[in-house]
Amino acid sequence: MASLNEEYPPEFSDERSLALVSDIIDWQINHGSLLKHMDPETRFPDDSPQCYPVGITIFPTLFPREHFDRACELQTIYNELYCAMAEDERWIFEAIRDLIPVDPLAAALWGIHEEVKKVGYRQRVSVGIFRSDYMLDGPGVEFPLRPGENFAGSLKQVEFNTFSCAGATHANKAVDMHRYFARTNAYDPGDDRLINVALAALPHNNTIASLSACLAAAHDAYQPRKGQVATETAVLFVVQPNNFNIADERPLEYALWNHDPPIPAYRVDYPNDFLQYTTLTESRVLLFHPPWLGSKCVEISVAYMRAGYEAHEYDTTGREARLRIELSMAIKCPSLLAHICTFKKVQCALTTPGALEHFISPAKAALIRSTFVSMYPLDDSEVGSHARHLATDPELSQNYILKPSLEGGGHNIFGEDIPGFLAAIPQSQWSAYILMERIRSPSVFNVLLSSSGLDSGGVISELGIFGTCLWRDGTEERPCEMLQNSVGGWSFKTKHEEVNEMSVVKGYGCFDTPLLF
Amino acid sequence: MASLNEEYPPEFSDERSLALVSDIIDWQINHGSLLKHMDPETRFPDDSPQCYPVGITIFPTLFPREHFDRACELQTIYNELYCAMAEDERWIFEAIRDLIPVDPLAAALWGIHEEVKKVGYRQRVSVGIFRSDYMLDGPGVEFPLRPGENFAGSLKQVEFNTFSCAGATHANKAVDMHRYFARTNAYDPGDDRLINVALAALPHNNTIASLSACLAAAHDAYQPRKGQVATETAVLFVVQPNNFNIADERPLEYALWNHDPPIPAYRVDYPNDFLQYTTLTESRVLLFHPPWLGSKCVEISVAYMRAGYEAHEYDTTGREARLRIELSMAIKCPSLLAHICTFKKVQCALTTPGALEHFISPAKAALIRSTFVSMYPLDDSEVGSHARHLATDPELSQNYILKPSLEGGGHNIFGEDIPGFLAAIPQSQWSAYILMERIRSPSVFNVLLSSSGLDSGGVISELGIFGTCLWRDGTEERPCEMLQNSVGGWSFKTKHEEVNEMSVVKGYGCFDTPLLF
Repeated sequence: MASLNEEYPPEFSDERSLALVSDIIDWQINHGSLLKHMDPETRFPDDSPQCYPVGITIFPTLFPREHFDRACELQTIYNELYCAMAEDERWIFEAIRDLIPVDPLAAALWGIHEEVKKVGYRQRVSVGIFRSDYMLDGPGVEFPLRPGENFAGSLKQVEFNTFSCAGATHANKAVDMHRYFARTNAYDPGDDRLINVALAALPHNNTIASLSACLAAAHDAYQPRKGQVATETAVLFVVQPNNFNIADERPLEYALWNHDPPIPAYRVDYPNDFLQYTTLTESRVLLFHPPWLGSKCVEISVAYMRAGYEAHEYDTTGREARLRIELSMAIKCPSLLAHICTFKKVQCALTTPGALEHFISPAKAALIRSTFVSMYPLDDSEVGSHARHLATDPELSQNYILKPSLEGGGHNIFGEDIPGFLAAIPQSQWSAYILMERIRSPSVFNVLLSSSGLDSGGVISELGIFGTCLWRDGTEERPCEMLQNSVGGWSFKTKHEEVNEMSVVKGYGCFDTPLLF
Repeated sequence: MASLNEEYPPEFSDERSLALVSDIIDWQINHGSLLKHMDPETRFPDDSPQCYPVGITIFPTLFPREHFDRACELQTIYNELYCAMAEDERWIFEAIRDLIPVDPLAAALWGIHEEVKKVGYRQRVSVGIFRSDYMLDGPGVEFPLRPGENFAGSLKQVEFNTFSCAGATHANKAVDMHRYFARTNAYDPGDDRLINVALAALPHNNTIASLSACLAAAHDAYQPRKGQVATETAVLFVVQPNNFNIADERPLEYALWNHDPPIPAYRVDYPNDFLQYTTLTESRVLLFHPPWLGSKCVEISVAYMRAGYEAHEYDTTGREARLRIELSMAIKCPSLLAHICTFKKVQCALTTPGALEHFISPAKAALIRSTFVSMYPLDDSEVGSHARHLATDPELSQNYILKPSLEGGGHNIFGEDIPGFLAAIPQSQWSAYILMERIRSPSVFNVLLSSSGLDSGGVISELGIFGTCLWRDGTEERPCEMLQNSVGGWSFKTKHEEVNEMSVVKGYGCFDTPLLF
């Protein structure tokens, strides 16, 4: 009996492939699976605003069901872990102490934290929309597997994102699309093969519903002061100006307005418009009153951050804006300390012996640790010294990635490039980086469709699991109280096996759906 | 007390207007309210397929409720009328007899009809997706109306479309969009004014659901022969190649697949791909077997025509393709004779005394006739002679439009241009045209948003009412049996008052929603 791996994806004639591509593009245009075109010079929309389909795979990509399920199961433990971390200021400070002098973003955020502490945080509840990213690790494994053979590798975490996690909407639409084409027999090879059974069981994904439900729960948890000044309470999306990725953010706003009862949701550009159109009352209620709402003054229940993840956003204006958010009564998505937990340096600290057990039970810690690869600081410690040796050796460095504490892809240094890169920067800067073991995913065949055309060949995928949670700071005894803790769906992104980066919106990969086997 | 007319639309600051425009564009991108960008030279999609928002009004446009309701009420009578006309071959032939020698499309269609008649039509049931277009006629009326004053004008028909009626999906999305902005208070002037009450009552429009339900009903009415060759029965969308308006067509396909139970829907380019990928069985079952469906062979229940409305589509290949459709067992949307009823010449014949009463009751005929303006043929009859006088006089012609029998806008000659136009063509060609009284709509204020930017000023609107129906040919006594007869929703298009044409996809207007008063 043939295995699914051997017969998937089906081989189509050129004519059939082109027809499918045309159908896919039309589906994307009709369902907002798009990016907004921004002029590359100004990053402003053209006079005639245009958009184009976001990168997507033609076929769903094979992924072992066991590891998909495992990643989902781990998410509520990861949520619990990161909420507990976010309430442990001392532990976080120890983790990033060396980073602050060399990383402007860490310095800015910690500075704002200290500023807020002088008067005290005003809101005890926080909300988290997290995403834990994984890849399959199986250096020796080759697809297709032989009949009866199981995938022998393991699931390893690439990074944990606590701030401004993107891709949820695109992922939701990708699976909707692949499911549509599966239902309409567009992938059907024409006989009764395993493919059809597998395609009929594409996993469900409701990220738009679950992320908006999480924001709605936070909105409900907020105790409005309205009646004093404001006549309405609303969720505020704090966004980057001239955003080309509005198709990822906007559907969450629409979902809140479509909530029963409707939850008002507005958006504001960070930091300038935010500073101009908000004020803090004496009791630190955050009021929003932009000219486009006429005479209306809105009390902000939840500040949902989709901006402020890059160092350059923290000039004087940016700091002032973020400070106002953090000082306010509004529930933050996420809290400032939860934001800092997204730093690689913090995640590196988490791999040290006993760190996980500081926050969660030994049983849970063991489950989480099984997803870790080796991570090292490049500092003066014994571990750091070992790491420096690995990183500066042309041979040994090939198994590692050098990562700064920045969000998203595009900043990492891979393998053989590491020694040269480190040699070119002052040693005092080295502590801004961590060294992480490379994950070696087995490649499978697929066809990628992006604005640069069609590209078929070996691909590897990254599975992101969204976590949604609501927590309250606690006491010395029980520092963090989970109010809600859920799996919020997933994203699945696939890139050519020879490309190091993974960032669909930057053109390095495609949204995808796992075909579980 | 102020009237709604006086205070609408609200005057917004530049800042508020720009914020609203940005929100509108994002909404359109997220909801497929788009056109596909085609290279103007080749009309093929660019390498990187792009799309842009379809023209839309910033605010819903004022329209008198009485006339909106009236137009909806008339639609089932119009459906009945046109189905009856479509079953009266002799009457249609009389109406277009003079057109055939001068109009290649009329000649092609009638030729195909005669060809089919030799062996006989094989399907007795037909389906219609019609659209009756109206404008307000009120030459002396000026908006805003004074408080307490009612709109004194009347509702006049611009044309009746029986073939390949477009705009249903865009219209559905336009009202969804305006309703979204009304719900989210984007139009709220900030105090308790009539505007908010009116906006809360924007009329509902479910054209996607009703048009797809009509196709589904036709599919159900078809008696499949499957089991012999085909394993599946499906609706076939017969479309133009390289179509930039896929966002108007595709959602109907998606709706059929989402129907419970799913109704397979495929599309094929007319005429080349159609000819290549279909065959007629001996019993004239229409089979569809394109390479992209693998080894599958599909029996076509309904041929939904979204191509074949232009004369150039009837070269040898085009004629052969249409002939195959008409010969087949498939239910046609619409039948060939119903297609011919879309000709202005036919609609002109309908305005002659007694013509309506030939098809419908005197009471219904009176209702329909009240929507007619004067229409004249330019032939040798007494009426034609009068029309030639009107059309060639520089003064008198100003109140008329010269219309060929072609579908859609872009071919009409307006007012003072008529005498010169007629003088430049041979008199033998004149009978291809009809002369129609101009409708003078009162203008109202609105802001139009299209790919060429923002344009505010006086605008006039065209209301299209969709009719969906299913009918069977009958006996001499009762030539047409209505199986279904419904109002299928509406479209509402608005253009600058100084622009003559109305064609949103060609850039002459915007989709809109009526704000009823």
